Amino acid sequence: MRHFTEKEIQDFDKIYRLNLINSITGYKSANLIATQSATGASNLAVFSSITHLGSDPALLGFILRPTTVPRHTYSNLKETGWFTVNHISADVIKDAHHTSAKYPSEVSEFDQTQLEVEYKNGQGCPFVKNAPVQILCSYLNEYPIAENGTILIVGKMNAIYVEPQMVLEDGWIQLDKGKVVSINGLDGYALPQLLDRFEYARPKKN
Amino acid sequence: MRHFTEKEIQDFDKIYRLNLINSITGYKSANLIATQSATGASNLAVFSSITHLGSDPALLGFILRPTTVPRHTYSNLKETGWFTVNHISADVIKDAHHTSAKYPSEVSEFDQTQLEVEYKNGQGCPFVKNAPVQILCSYLNEYPIAENGTILIVGKMNAIYVEPQMVLEDGWIQLDKGKVVSINGLDGYALPQLLDRFEYARPKKN
Repeated sequence: MRHFTEKEIQDFDKIYRLNLINSITGYKSANLIATQSATGASNLAVFSSITHLGSDPALLGFILRPTTVPRHTYSNLKETGWFTVNHISADVIKDAHHTSAKYPSEVSEFDQTQLEVEYKNGQGCPFVKNAPVQILCSYLNEYPIAENGTILIVGKMNAIYVEPQMVLEDGWIQLDKGKVVSINGLDGYALPQLLDRFEYARPKKN
Repeated sequence: MRHFTEKEIQDFDKIYRLNLINSITGYKSANLIATQSATGASNLAVFSSITHLGSDPALLGFILRPTTVPRHTYSNLKETGWFTVNHISADVIKDAHHTSAKYPSEVSEFDQTQLEVEYKNGQGCPFVKNAPVQILCSYLNEYPIAENGTILIVGKMNAIYVEPQMVLEDGWIQLDKGKVVSINGLDGYALPQLLDRFEYARPKKN
């Protein structure tokens, strides 16, 4: 095994460390978070930190670095109370990645890519059209992480839209039927295929 | 699109909602967290919530439900200050999933599966032998999530061990070279393959 010590990790140049540490924790979720400002300017940004927090109520979280490009996401969701989580399919990975470019707030990433905005009836928050899964979320809370200045945002799922062929009889969403991707590090996009699904695990009788 | 309203989500039976909400947020990381108690009893549990928190210092987080089986993980990492994060490869998904069974604390999941414990020189915390990535972590902090009683654990990466063929020249870890899997919901295991890796995104010149 290749062994990296704590001192080596600290002493690497910034890019090497960014690549290593962003990819070492395993595959990450691949989502576009769409928001709009109080004045109606839409914003779209790729995130790889969406995490399931609980099922009842249906909660998710994600990590924000407030000093970098996703600050438009933060200011918008604080202004309006809403954001949407849209899954990235294999067909749109190039455009999805491009939303990480640092555009000024008056520029919508929807205008800089082939990704199209969708407004659903009665909901004042943009979605990504044709995303295989779209989740409307409301801002609930935030937890500043003292160790490095990031913020954990906690949101509630208020509505879910999903391609019908992905929904199995028991409520399980089969993600590979929507060509949903996962993220490897900062810039790698991978397409998973289901290997197996297991029963609820019970202790073996010895 | 199939549309689930907030009321429908609330009204589903528990199993349907667990399946739906656990799988709807996208692919999750697939890791085994190994710990041991102050008296040396080892514990191993599957987690799908490991999240990158930052690169400098190298931090990760994960979500604990303190009232369910991973409480052994929690009590051990609080007692000793240490835990290890071990990636799940396609070869061991069945045994990895079995670690979610509710064994009493005196039973080690290493004894109930083919997964083997590994102790590395000078480090008093168990690793999963032959895992393609092994990360030694120290407990830094915890954040109780008021919305549902879960806990975000924040840990520092103190050492990384990785199969050499997975480490690229710029520090990026190519996870599919280690057959690392990702998790779909509570019980689905998927194997990703790299589609593409992109340059750092810069605004287009219009």
